[in-house]
Amino acid sequence: MDLTAVRGSRDFLPSEKILRNSAVAKLSSVFESYGFNPLETPALENIEVLSSKFAGGEEILKETYQLEDQGKRKLGLRYDLTVPLARLIAGNSFPMPFKRYAIDKVWRDGPLKAGRYREFVQCDVDVLGVKSVSAEAELMALAQDAFRKLGLSVVVKVNSRKLLNGVLQKAGVSKDKEASFILSLDKLEKIGVSGVKKELVDKGFSEKIVVNALKLLESKKLSDYSKIGNADAEAGFNELKEFFEFLNEFNVKIVEFSPTLARGLNYYTGIVFEAFLKDSEIKSSIAAGGRYDELIGKFSGRGEVPAVGISFGLDVLCEELKKTESKQSVVNVLVIPFKTLPQAIALTQTLRSNGVNALVDLNEKGVSKNLDFASKQGISFVIFCGEQELKSGKFKVRDMSSGKEELLSEKDLVKVLK
Amino acid sequence: MDLTAVRGSRDFLPSEKILRNSAVAKLSSVFESYGFNPLETPALENIEVLSSKFAGGEEILKETYQLEDQGKRKLGLRYDLTVPLARLIAGNSFPMPFKRYAIDKVWRDGPLKAGRYREFVQCDVDVLGVKSVSAEAELMALAQDAFRKLGLSVVVKVNSRKLLNGVLQKAGVSKDKEASFILSLDKLEKIGVSGVKKELVDKGFSEKIVVNALKLLESKKLSDYSKIGNADAEAGFNELKEFFEFLNEFNVKIVEFSPTLARGLNYYTGIVFEAFLKDSEIKSSIAAGGRYDELIGKFSGRGEVPAVGISFGLDVLCEELKKTESKQSVVNVLVIPFKTLPQAIALTQTLRSNGVNALVDLNEKGVSKNLDFASKQGISFVIFCGEQELKSGKFKVRDMSSGKEELLSEKDLVKVLK
Repeated sequence: MDLTAVRGSRDFLPSEKILRNSAVAKLSSVFESYGFNPLETPALENIEVLSSKFAGGEEILKETYQLEDQGKRKLGLRYDLTVPLARLIAGNSFPMPFKRYAIDKVWRDGPLKAGRYREFVQCDVDVLGVKSVSAEAELMALAQDAFRKLGLSVVVKVNSRKLLNGVLQKAGVSKDKEASFILSLDKLEKIGVSGVKKELVDKGFSEKIVVNALKLLESKKLSDYSKIGNADAEAGFNELKEFFEFLNEFNVKIVEFSPTLARGLNYYTGIVFEAFLKDSEIKSSIAAGGRYDELIGKFSGRGEVPAVGISFGLDVLCEELKKTESKQSVVNVLVIPFKTLPQAIALTQTLRSNGVNALVDLNEKGVSKNLDFASKQGISFVIFCGEQELKSGKFKVRDMSSGKEELLSEKDLVKVLK
Repeated sequence: MDLTAVRGSRDFLPSEKILRNSAVAKLSSVFESYGFNPLETPALENIEVLSSKFAGGEEILKETYQLEDQGKRKLGLRYDLTVPLARLIAGNSFPMPFKRYAIDKVWRDGPLKAGRYREFVQCDVDVLGVKSVSAEAELMALAQDAFRKLGLSVVVKVNSRKLLNGVLQKAGVSKDKEASFILSLDKLEKIGVSGVKKELVDKGFSEKIVVNALKLLESKKLSDYSKIGNADAEAGFNELKEFFEFLNEFNVKIVEFSPTLARGLNYYTGIVFEAFLKDSEIKSSIAAGGRYDELIGKFSGRGEVPAVGISFGLDVLCEELKKTESKQSVVNVLVIPFKTLPQAIALTQTLRSNGVNALVDLNEKGVSKNLDFASKQGISFVIFCGEQELKSGKFKVRDMSSGKEELLSEKDLVKVLK
């Protein structure tokens, strides 16, 4: 029998799961400080929902795990947390703005590469009902706080879909081909300029148009885009200008303008952003998002519902955090009985009820085996609970890292170990 | 398009998700205080694993959602967290005792009834590597602490599979039919004595044997089971006696002996338990478990691995908690700007960085709409951020429940709102 985890998924042993829990707790607390409420939708969705023409699109549907329940209903494992949100909005009437976060698993049966999994966790933060780019700016402040809390040094690249469309029009890309052009452009980081050029020419764009577009997108100075000369470009330029003004109000320092940033997904309508680690060999983005004013409205048939969201990739975040954080066990202390199990149990229960994570050796397997166990498990302290300790009311505690021992009363034990 | 959640699953809107998060946090902290480390396995497992003969058995396999990935691998959504644990133990060599908890979704495509779902969350706590019934007693102490922390009044019914087997032998049930008899007996709470009798007779047990067995199981006093007169009964009686002695050491008060308690699953080998709410209309169990010394060893081919576990049902726990706890939003305060958005943003950011969950109205939609929003959303406080407030450095704060208003400096705001 194959006893490994299903291809594309992973088991998280305690040291990794402790790290993941800690990252999730930090992210949640920042999200909540920005007034986002938690929300949960099921892992399974009706295929009808996942394949709606306003949902994730053809490409992602190919990667969707599909199944049937016993009632022959066609179901799929969700590929993101945005489509379920859109479904939920359609079926409810929440006061706006509606701010929610969701930290949960999604599944994509796609090709496997280093750092890419088929079962992974998204941490999505979305605000619905705010048209102003102050919403984007607020999400950038949230991201800055989140990365600071995680101890990560990050740059967020930002662009406007409108500006990009305007530039592409100027370069001679016809309006109905913009999306296709953008999809290729989005691969700039991955396959480089020559790769993108080739893909675009293969798609049928003339070399002249491709060269034109890439030339127009060369400058990284926003002011250079003030005079492209069409409505889309102007709208894009203006929203970016206003956005950077709001970033000032929010005291955000981690954002930079990146005119070639595109984001693969079709549904973005305005500002888009993507966050990358500084000084790390991890080159893939660790968070991304943007404005998608049409998706939810169209999906829900409720007219326009302005929406901006950012999604943090828990897996890639933890990949980076692993390098510096490591905690093997939640256990603070192991209590070792010497034919004193009942008293050792009582002592352990006292520690636990005072908030100390404590183990007691129920197998009574002796000192050396217990010390060995504690050191293998990364447990910081052991307490010796012998007859003499019980008589004197002072327990010998060993700090496993320094080897130092101390005699402490029950009361002091709680203080030291907590 | 059907916009409801998939049949048998639910959306958890903020008020419910806040409650669920709070319950999970309380449970996790108790589990960790007992030295259990967190662990996570994937939602998808190979069907080979889920259908192994040492896994959950035929009945549960019928309720397993099955699917194929693009590589034609046969997969299933896990129906519990125990089989994945067994798979993990088989593939790793952890120092024993190995104590882990897992709080995660499982799926069963079974019949729907009130309080029964197809996608639900189990909170599993298992200790591997302890033969002594002190492990069961420790889990009872953990359960007692968990229920206390949740504010729930609970009784845990306990029995021994060995004792039950012994009694059934005495009543004339042949050894190969014990499991089948126990499966029916497990339904006593649900379908009553007459229902169980009927089912057993339909299964082919003679009425005499059925009546005998039920008569032997009438007394609720453990000491009445000291002289059944066969090896299994004696072993069961002794383990229960020792278990109750350990309960004393752990200071556990919520456990009572229940000789007809059976637990449906095949894999239990010793003490079994099931927790029920007192004074509630919810009659189904809210936690259950027992000793299963054979499953993991057989599954992993590692020889005997003694194991005891308890699983808390998050959904039923929250159903009960909902009656007394309710928090609609994580937001403490809404900041209302009056043509002062930049300053309101700065104030909000100060609150957030001091640990206050704060919203700022980016839509600048005026006082009455904001007050309406705050009261609909259950937000406790609003801050008025007008020109005058900014000049004086004192902000008007309204307590939304009492209507009381106060003028406070930024510093005092943080203190009051935190």
